[in-house]
Amino acid sequence: MNRLERAIQHLHENDMGCALVSKPENIYYLTGFFPHASSLLILDSEPVLLITKMDSTRDITSAVDYEVVKDFKDRLKAIKEKKIGVEKGRLTLSFWEKHLRGKELLDLGFLEEMRAVKDRGEIKEITKAVEVTEECLGGVSLRGTEKDAALTIEVCLRKAADSAFEPIVAGGKNSAVPHHRPTDGEIAGPVIVDLGARVNHYCADMTRTFLLDTEEAVERYRIVLEAQEAGIRQARDGNEIRAVDRAVREVLAEYGYLDDFLHSSGHGVGLEVHEAPTLNSEAEGSFKKGMVVSVEPGIYRDFGIRMEDMVLVGKRPKLLTSFKR
Amino acid sequence: MNRLERAIQHLHENDMGCALVSKPENIYYLTGFFPHASSLLILDSEPVLLITKMDSTRDITSAVDYEVVKDFKDRLKAIKEKKIGVEKGRLTLSFWEKHLRGKELLDLGFLEEMRAVKDRGEIKEITKAVEVTEECLGGVSLRGTEKDAALTIEVCLRKAADSAFEPIVAGGKNSAVPHHRPTDGEIAGPVIVDLGARVNHYCADMTRTFLLDTEEAVERYRIVLEAQEAGIRQARDGNEIRAVDRAVREVLAEYGYLDDFLHSSGHGVGLEVHEAPTLNSEAEGSFKKGMVVSVEPGIYRDFGIRMEDMVLVGKRPKLLTSFKR
Repeated sequence: MNRLERAIQHLHENDMGCALVSKPENIYYLTGFFPHASSLLILDSEPVLLITKMDSTRDITSAVDYEVVKDFKDRLKAIKEKKIGVEKGRLTLSFWEKHLRGKELLDLGFLEEMRAVKDRGEIKEITKAVEVTEECLGGVSLRGTEKDAALTIEVCLRKAADSAFEPIVAGGKNSAVPHHRPTDGEIAGPVIVDLGARVNHYCADMTRTFLLDTEEAVERYRIVLEAQEAGIRQARDGNEIRAVDRAVREVLAEYGYLDDFLHSSGHGVGLEVHEAPTLNSEAEGSFKKGMVVSVEPGIYRDFGIRMEDMVLVGKRPKLLTSFKR
Repeated sequence: MNRLERAIQHLHENDMGCALVSKPENIYYLTGFFPHASSLLILDSEPVLLITKMDSTRDITSAVDYEVVKDFKDRLKAIKEKKIGVEKGRLTLSFWEKHLRGKELLDLGFLEEMRAVKDRGEIKEITKAVEVTEECLGGVSLRGTEKDAALTIEVCLRKAADSAFEPIVAGGKNSAVPHHRPTDGEIAGPVIVDLGARVNHYCADMTRTFLLDTEEAVERYRIVLEAQEAGIRQARDGNEIRAVDRAVREVLAEYGYLDDFLHSSGHGVGLEVHEAPTLNSEAEGSFKKGMVVSVEPGIYRDFGIRMEDMVLVGKRPKLLTSFKR
């Protein structure tokens, strides 16, 4: 069964009359068409992709029939089913008030779960994205300003493919800010570099910390590395997803840095840089062969250290990233 | 009265017990703090800004008191008021189900309306963004691939300030796609270049079409220019907002190109590249002195022509962009 058939089967098994899919990554995953403007996939036994005018002049290849529409109003009005699947984490209250009042809405979380397990073709694209990422990381110059370095990285990623997000270059006290925006200040140590390429819609995401200019920085680096390795070991088929976060935090706690870790221990990487599963203490379910996740512990106190690698889940975890740590 | 006081007054006048503001641009507008991670401003007589851990290690300057929180759960649970203002176009169904069931929710559209009218400081920032934009547009080279040209523009914008969005370079048949993503193909004529700088959070947005290599392209260019000028003339204090779109479409219709215009005639530009007001046929209300809008008619048939300039609304429309058309 292909993705589309599996998705439709899921709807039927869960008693949903139909589903409305609007997230571009989900539409691409099911149809092969990546919308740039607002699109809507009406998923049922005879799925139809509604494309708005702004995308109508593109070359359109889609695994399902498509129609170019002015807006979605008439098509939504015509839906008779009471039970409808939607992306609840994306659907806005405005959209609901305008189009879906009175319907019973169920979440399409299963689509994110489907996407979490990558097939061979997807792993190939992600591997290419990792290659480009490591090439650009290898060429990074840590002289000049944070902004210059970040821009150089981005140009490298874009020339080879595309950048999955704006690279982070955060030096000195700025490294204590996980999502720091590069400044015009000269790079100081330690410096966190967080980058990722995008190749044929698939992302990579990795982080290294350079210029460990004090003993404390070196010591913390060792701790983060230890935490990361403990986390990575847990990313095995059949193991609880939350085990990664637990292992990471155990190591950080041992050295007294638990409160200085400000985010989750990692996340799925695929069509989105951050996608299912989220590796935190509330994660439910088990790892499955073919999941691709990043594992990224960090310590943020006065300055920061973070290390992020990508792992393919199997019987054993397999590192997709190979840049020396 | 400052922005914050005006916003609170609006709540009181509309019987809202409080408001929840989550859009980063709205939070910045009211508090001076631009969140990078998820934040929530609880707006009432004693507003408080809730900042999550990921932003907690940044230098925080805010016009209102702030607290660093793990999540918003407890603070949202404590809200006793029944009538609450929210950003309905942004609030997701998940968030509503988790935190706001049973409340009467009113839309905070008035915040977007407030932001639509710029004060002197904002116009200064926008003017700077326009300057950077025009400098980079002036330096653009239309040799090589679309991707190279777009990247060169982006580097120029980033070096001077920041890029408000990924520049579009769309040549030949690609120019028929309004939101085309630059390819590895060599640039062909006619080529649409759409770019904008961001300076201190404020955006610019402008478009030019170059390499008019056929008579038909030159002819269409004249029509688009005529439509744009007709539209711009309507952007006057007190005039109906929809008058711009009407004027633009009248000219395009006259030459038989009405169906080849695939988007609205323009939009507000400020903290967001696209913000209120939207210049389409459904626009309500009147222009006010201090609004900043782009006017951007286009014709997309086989190939595309688009022209976009930014206008400051006053007794007369004042062009902020000056790049030759």
